[in-house]
Amino acid sequence: METKEFLAALGDALEPSRVVLDPDITSGFSRDMMPLAPSGTPLAVVFPIDTAEVAAIVKLCAAARIPIVPRGAGSGLTGAANAVDGAVTMVMTRMNAILEIDQGNRLAVVQPGVVNLDFRTAVESCGLFYAPDPSSYDWCTIGGNLSTNAGGLCCVKYGVTTDAVLGLEVVLASGEVLRTGRRTVKGVAGYDLTKLLVGSEGTLCIITEATLALRPKPAAPVTLVAAFASTEAAGEAVSGAIRAGLVPSLLEIMDATCIRAVEAKHGTKVLGDGETPAALLIGQSDAGAGVGRREMDELEVVCLRAGATFAYVTDDLAEGRMLLQARRDVLSSLEMFGTWLTDDVSVPRTRIAELISACEKISAQVGLTIGVVGHAGDGNMHPTIVYDAADPAQAAAAELAFGLMLDAGRALGGTVTGEHGVGRIKQDFLAREIGPVGLDLHRRIKNALDPDGLFNPGSMFTEAPTPAG
Amino acid sequence: METKEFLAALGDALEPSRVVLDPDITSGFSRDMMPLAPSGTPLAVVFPIDTAEVAAIVKLCAAARIPIVPRGAGSGLTGAANAVDGAVTMVMTRMNAILEIDQGNRLAVVQPGVVNLDFRTAVESCGLFYAPDPSSYDWCTIGGNLSTNAGGLCCVKYGVTTDAVLGLEVVLASGEVLRTGRRTVKGVAGYDLTKLLVGSEGTLCIITEATLALRPKPAAPVTLVAAFASTEAAGEAVSGAIRAGLVPSLLEIMDATCIRAVEAKHGTKVLGDGETPAALLIGQSDAGAGVGRREMDELEVVCLRAGATFAYVTDDLAEGRMLLQARRDVLSSLEMFGTWLTDDVSVPRTRIAELISACEKISAQVGLTIGVVGHAGDGNMHPTIVYDAADPAQAAAAELAFGLMLDAGRALGGTVTGEHGVGRIKQDFLAREIGPVGLDLHRRIKNALDPDGLFNPGSMFTEAPTPAG
Repeated sequence: METKEFLAALGDALEPSRVVLDPDITSGFSRDMMPLAPSGTPLAVVFPIDTAEVAAIVKLCAAARIPIVPRGAGSGLTGAANAVDGAVTMVMTRMNAILEIDQGNRLAVVQPGVVNLDFRTAVESCGLFYAPDPSSYDWCTIGGNLSTNAGGLCCVKYGVTTDAVLGLEVVLASGEVLRTGRRTVKGVAGYDLTKLLVGSEGTLCIITEATLALRPKPAAPVTLVAAFASTEAAGEAVSGAIRAGLVPSLLEIMDATCIRAVEAKHGTKVLGDGETPAALLIGQSDAGAGVGRREMDELEVVCLRAGATFAYVTDDLAEGRMLLQARRDVLSSLEMFGTWLTDDVSVPRTRIAELISACEKISAQVGLTIGVVGHAGDGNMHPTIVYDAADPAQAAAAELAFGLMLDAGRALGGTVTGEHGVGRIKQDFLAREIGPVGLDLHRRIKNALDPDGLFNPGSMFTEAPTPAG
Repeated sequence: METKEFLAALGDALEPSRVVLDPDITSGFSRDMMPLAPSGTPLAVVFPIDTAEVAAIVKLCAAARIPIVPRGAGSGLTGAANAVDGAVTMVMTRMNAILEIDQGNRLAVVQPGVVNLDFRTAVESCGLFYAPDPSSYDWCTIGGNLSTNAGGLCCVKYGVTTDAVLGLEVVLASGEVLRTGRRTVKGVAGYDLTKLLVGSEGTLCIITEATLALRPKPAAPVTLVAAFASTEAAGEAVSGAIRAGLVPSLLEIMDATCIRAVEAKHGTKVLGDGETPAALLIGQSDAGAGVGRREMDELEVVCLRAGATFAYVTDDLAEGRMLLQARRDVLSSLEMFGTWLTDDVSVPRTRIAELISACEKISAQVGLTIGVVGHAGDGNMHPTIVYDAADPAQAAAAELAFGLMLDAGRALGGTVTGEHGVGRIKQDFLAREIGPVGLDLHRRIKNALDPDGLFNPGSMFTEAPTPAG
């Protein structure tokens, strides 16, 4: 099929307003939030409104052998939603309905384009709770969360996106519609296709609907903040918390670079007039009814035993929010000093201090500021490089540091991505981590589901298409 | 390769004591605990002691095109470990080491042959907890739990086996060794092969090692028992508990048939001299520190509001164990009246009473006793048929009832297996549940991983081998 003919067929399949060819508009859909990833120019950007339209577009693309890049809000941090030259970018944001909230069975059925925060708010109004809360929760979509198996701050207690998915409706590369999973709490009928498809970064299917497990709304959190004179002491506190059997609902760490950035942004010291500490831990418990307070009091003792120079526990919600806000402000504070490039390394929880120390060495080696912030309770750290993107030497140094930190994480028994995914920036690191047998198995599964390489070529481990001649 | 030549090569690969050809011994490995499933005569039964031996056997079998049935303790309830004529049965019970318990990272590394109870006991001695607890936990193996994605009584709070698996080592059909997953809490490097392989019932690989997530050891449980004059009222109590936001660590139901069987076995009424109730709920909370008591007190109120004729909460551990023992004694009590055939239907939690009512109708229709027992808190029910296996008419009626209950569960929005799996008894039900698109995708994945159909032929959806002529 000629391109012209294909575009005409696309125009017939969708309302004109939902097939966009104007480069001034389509260029707005060429990238996500990862500055390092390659991106191309989409042939067209389409906005389907239901599963039938998705299936029709997939069939048209399959017939014309034109690849498809599925895309949510574009909040991703690996370029997995970046446009590919000559491919159709399929934007799922118009399929944003919450189809059902079933309180009796604690589940919901949603379309992929619903924004995480909108969904959270809707279920909370029913006394329920959707746990996965990536930092971009106020604008990322559930479909993107599913495609990347997104995590967030609550993971330490409640797990990641895959732990909340009961079933999916997807469109396969053949254009067929497949329903996986179930509406029951448990079910083992056949292979766990649901969990295979979650986290597949748009390379195996287009997600058109999801059935999600909900939890009872937890109690209002009790918050702890603790300051340390060394990152080792903070790391020891995290290990101590695990050994003590504590299960906080949130346990975050910030190093001195991040703390100073936040202090600079707000023009105030986080600990009043005291010195800037080497590390801060911020913990919460949502166990409620006195238990939350006791858990945070126990964590305070663990922190003090590990050498905390300051520790404070509060039941006051506004105060707790304010303390947590310092954590949430890290990226925007670092941004005042240059472009940020955030990495995503997950290490065993006992190795956090070693990872921070490795990042300090890498910072010195490449001559760039690196602030370490992360989900200490589950070992998923986001060392963030600050650099001048207009300076090619600094950009090269940033890319070097990005990779060195992944190598450091792997050397500590970790993985090259805890929650952001592989996308178009970590293919080589993925290949090294999973090895040739694992890579071969990935290719065989990809080939079984998408033999013509229709979905998201160039992401994860798949071949980028050769540009049309 | 001739069979004789193959057996000689097998004899060269393993110590003589670990290759068994004597039919008197191999016949002991021909079946699991499901009376309805077909089974054959193994060509040989092998007992590998390490991954290298597993890989060597797989390569030999692949070269000779002789299928392999992997097997743990044989506690399965679907015939998935039943011998296949002319195939090698690979018994994993000698690979039963607990390789590591890492308290700082709350994880363990085990071989597949370790018995669930032995593993639980070992981690509990370190102050940790492994949640999945199938009813056969005192003799089933972790490898079998992984292959079936086993559940248990704790699922309602802690999830099923897949929720506790961080990574696997497996031998593929090529004989290659693959490591999946990670030792970190979070990780999204590549497809989630770990969760694809868990629950694949031995049809995709042989599991040789698993890295398992552990939890802090929970507090001693507080136990509730409540009696109801109708199953509807008991079902309403379960729905009420979910709506009230309760998260018990266990919530089981028994119907009058089960209660009467247990009463007959013990020669005593469960509620003293009172009438046998229509249903019992047994709940526990392990939240500890007063919270457990409060949760069970709240559940008591929910039960009484739903019409419970009796409800009682106890902190006393021995009393709690005794109450739970009535639940654990159901199968052995029903066995006094004939052979039991236990089904495994999972329905949305709001539909439990309807499923019990459907089972009562099916019992009347086929003229056999059916006792309903199950994990009410997650909707996974085990209606159990009692029949005379020596009577062909009763055996046929039992098989009919078995299928009718699955159909009833599906009609209520449920699934044909909550935790036992498909094996060699539910292939047709699986096909109906997942539909032609799902079945085709299963075949494509099977073909991608095991193109020659080496692993566990005849289970789940795979073709049974045609007997050699």
